[in-house]
Amino acid sequence: MCNMNHDNVTNGYAATKDELLKRLSRAEGQVRGVARMVEEDRYCMDVLTQISAARAALDRVALAVLDEHVRHCVVGGHGPGTEQERIDELMAAVGRLSGRRP
Amino acid sequence: MCNMNHDNVTNGYAATKDELLKRLSRAEGQVRGVARMVEEDRYCMDVLTQISAARAALDRVALAVLDEHVRHCVVGGHGPGTEQERIDELMAAVGRLSGRRP
Amino acid sequence: MCNMNHDNVTNGYAATKDELLKRLSRAEGQVRGVARMVEEDRYCMDVLTQISAARAALDRVALAVLDEHVRHCVVGGHGPGTEQERIDELMAAVGRLSGRRP
Amino acid sequence: MCNMNHDNVTNGYAATKDELLKRLSRAEGQVRGVARMVEEDRYCMDVLTQISAARAALDRVALAVLDEHVRHCVVGGHGPGTEQERIDELMAAVGRLSGRRP
Repeated sequence: MCNMNHDNVTNGYAATKDELLKRLSRAEGQVRGVARMVEEDRYCMDVLTQISAARAALDRVALAVLDEHVRHCVVGGHGPGTEQERIDELMAAVGRLSGRRP
Repeated sequence: MCNMNHDNVTNGYAATKDELLKRLSRAEGQVRGVARMVEEDRYCMDVLTQISAARAALDRVALAVLDEHVRHCVVGGHGPGTEQERIDELMAAVGRLSGRRP
Repeated sequence: MCNMNHDNVTNGYAATKDELLKRLSRAEGQVRGVARMVEEDRYCMDVLTQISAARAALDRVALAVLDEHVRHCVVGGHGPGTEQERIDELMAAVGRLSGRRP
Repeated sequence: MCNMNHDNVTNGYAATKDELLKRLSRAEGQVRGVARMVEEDRYCMDVLTQISAARAALDRVALAVLDEHVRHCVVGGHGPGTEQERIDELMAAVGRLSGRRP
């Protein structure tokens, strides 16, 4: 059951701390952009497009943070608690990211 | 087919322009908070929780903007184009919000 | 505020009743396929890919049903209750689809 | 960075093979129920509620499969490829579940 389907592998979430901070600064600018558009009574659909961009930026940051967490804390074994607890904590985070509670 | 299931109705998305701007300002602060946590090497899972809060705030703004759009532009008839075009545009926005393309 | 950004319009959700039933029958087959894969202890990641396919099929059905609803019940004016109630009900459905409660 | 926030831990995704098959059989029944509702021209919003139930059932199965995968293939070390490849594959799956590509 533990073989691997290489076709599905994409290696694109990992990011350095500097990259994360750059993305977050961009996301902050996007949220400010949304406020400006609301202030100026811009067309609703254009406001929604800008909100989607900010949300997508945040999601990419979340996945990069999770990637780091899996690498160092869960698999790397530097994490706290028992292995069982670390896996539970990881799954709780994945459940929240996917919008699904257990 | 057009009857109504009153149990499912919740009336909680509408918001005034002032409320939207207040929420966006809070979301901007939350994104800045995420950056601060990354800067300070805070625990990954706590960073994720903060990202979720910012994302949820943005989603609520998106739903309020969409509510306004349906009310004034789609149903209110002040929208541009034909009725067909307005419905297509609305559905495209809903598809994006739900993470699903046609 | 009610102008239109034609670039964002995609007209791909509407479906006839026959198309919906065909898609649902395919989704049902996909769910059965997932069960078969679990039964045969297939690789976890392949099971997840098949679940994603079934989920995407259901989401497309949901968007087609919502498209129909907007067209006939909300905009078409054949819906029940007041215009306010119809919009509230629509937004509640969009909120559920996007995984966000008010 | 690898401490643990016990408040966020919920231990509810793991499931036995039998439980997975039971849930999938229920999800299959729910999809059939959606088809019956479409066939009978039931109210759109009620159809959407039923679709949401089927989708939620599939999501819970996906999280249980992922939990199993993390436990045995990623952390347990029974997985294929290098540790790096296993983590990449896991993150690709989480990205798909959360509706976000890298």
